[in-house]
Amino acid sequence: MNKHTINHLPNQTITPENFGIGARFTVNVMSNDYVDIILTALSNTPKIDVAVITDPVSTYVTGSEQAIVNYIGSVIQKIASSQHHISVSLMLSRGCPGEVTCQLPDNSIISSMNPISLPPSGIEVLAQWSLYPLIDSVNESYSHMDDIYRAIDYAKNKGTYKRSHHYVTELEGDLAAVLETITSGWLMVGKTVQHVTTHATFSINSPTRS
Amino acid sequence: MNKHTINHLPNQTITPENFGIGARFTVNVMSNDYVDIILTALSNTPKIDVAVITDPVSTYVTGSEQAIVNYIGSVIQKIASSQHHISVSLMLSRGCPGEVTCQLPDNSIISSMNPISLPPSGIEVLAQWSLYPLIDSVNESYSHMDDIYRAIDYAKNKGTYKRSHHYVTELEGDLAAVLETITSGWLMVGKTVQHVTTHATFSINSPTRS
Repeated sequence: MNKHTINHLPNQTITPENFGIGARFTVNVMSNDYVDIILTALSNTPKIDVAVITDPVSTYVTGSEQAIVNYIGSVIQKIASSQHHISVSLMLSRGCPGEVTCQLPDNSIISSMNPISLPPSGIEVLAQWSLYPLIDSVNESYSHMDDIYRAIDYAKNKGTYKRSHHYVTELEGDLAAVLETITSGWLMVGKTVQHVTTHATFSINSPTRS
Repeated sequence: MNKHTINHLPNQTITPENFGIGARFTVNVMSNDYVDIILTALSNTPKIDVAVITDPVSTYVTGSEQAIVNYIGSVIQKIASSQHHISVSLMLSRGCPGEVTCQLPDNSIISSMNPISLPPSGIEVLAQWSLYPLIDSVNESYSHMDDIYRAIDYAKNKGTYKRSHHYVTELEGDLAAVLETITSGWLMVGKTVQHVTTHATFSINSPTRS
C-alpha cells in the first residue's frame, strides 16, 4: 500500500457530483444510418440514477460508479446490436469536480468499495486501456506505475487481459467483463489517489477480426 | 516554474522512440464506405520520418512531435475531405517508452523546444481535450493543475479555446490550430514532467452543427 496521507471526506459531504465522479463517452457507428441508431439507443436507455448531457462531441454521465457503468454498458449494447462496426471512446474521471477547477480539500478521498458488476452482454469487445493517477505530493516511495501494474494484474486475474502495447493495455472479452475491468482498475487507484482518470477505445463488430 | 529536480538526458541517448514519444489515434467515419475511405487515406499519406503500425483498434505513430502531428493531421484531413461526419480519438504520450514498463532514468526529461506548426487545413474541428502530467515525487509547491491551467491559457491566447466543461477543455478552429494547441500544451508540461499524456476527441463535419 502507498503510505501518503489520505483525509477521507465526512460522509455527509460525499455525493458523486461533488467528488466529480463521472464519464464522457462517444459511440461511433460506421454506417450511413448512424444518427438514427445512436438517437434510438439513447432514447431507449432509461437514465437510472444518472444525469446525462449529450453535446456535439460526447455524452457526459454522472452518478455512482455502478450507475454510470450500467448506463454506458446499456447504450453500447443497444448500438452494438445493430451489427454495424462501432468504436467507442470512453473516459472515467474522479476527484476533479467542476469544470476547469479542481476544488476539493487536499488529499481528500472517497472510495466506493462495492465491486462493479454487470450482467454478461453477449457482445465481444477489443479495447485499448490507459489509467492515470494524477498525484501531486506523495511519499517518496510512491510510483504511479505501481498502481497501474496492480490494475493490470487485476485484469490478468479476471481473464480480460490480452497484451501490453505502447501506451495501452489491450483487453478482450464480453463488454460487461471489459467494463468491469476498466472501472475496477480506476476504483483501485482511487483508494489512494484523489484525481484519477482512465481512457479506453473499444472496437466492436470489426470486420478486421472476422 | 516548478522547482523539482530534472536530469536532462545526454543528447546522444535521446531518440523519440527511447523516450516513448508517440501517438495513437482512431478515425471513425460514419459511412457504409468507411473501410475504403480509411484505407485509401492511410495508403495515400506518406510516412515522413514516422513509424506507423495500424492494429484493429488504433494506429500507433512514433517520431518527432512535429513529424507525428504532420502525419496525423494529413490522415485526418484526407478522411475529412470525404465530407462524411468523422470523429477522431487521439492520444499523445511521452516519457513512458516500451510497453507496460516505463524504464527511464528517474526524472529524466527531454523537451523539444521547436514550436509545432502546421499549414491551415480548411477543416473546422470541435474537440474535447484533457492533459495529464503523471508525476511521482515533486516539490511540495507543485500542483498538476498549474501545468494544466498554463496550457489552457495558451489555448485562450491562441484563439482555439471555446469553453471549459466537465473533465475537458473544448477547442474549436481549424484542424491545424487545434492540433497545434494540443501538441504545444503537451510539450509545455513535458518541460518539467517526465511522463505526460494528452487525449482528445474531435468532431468534424457534424450534422449537429450545421
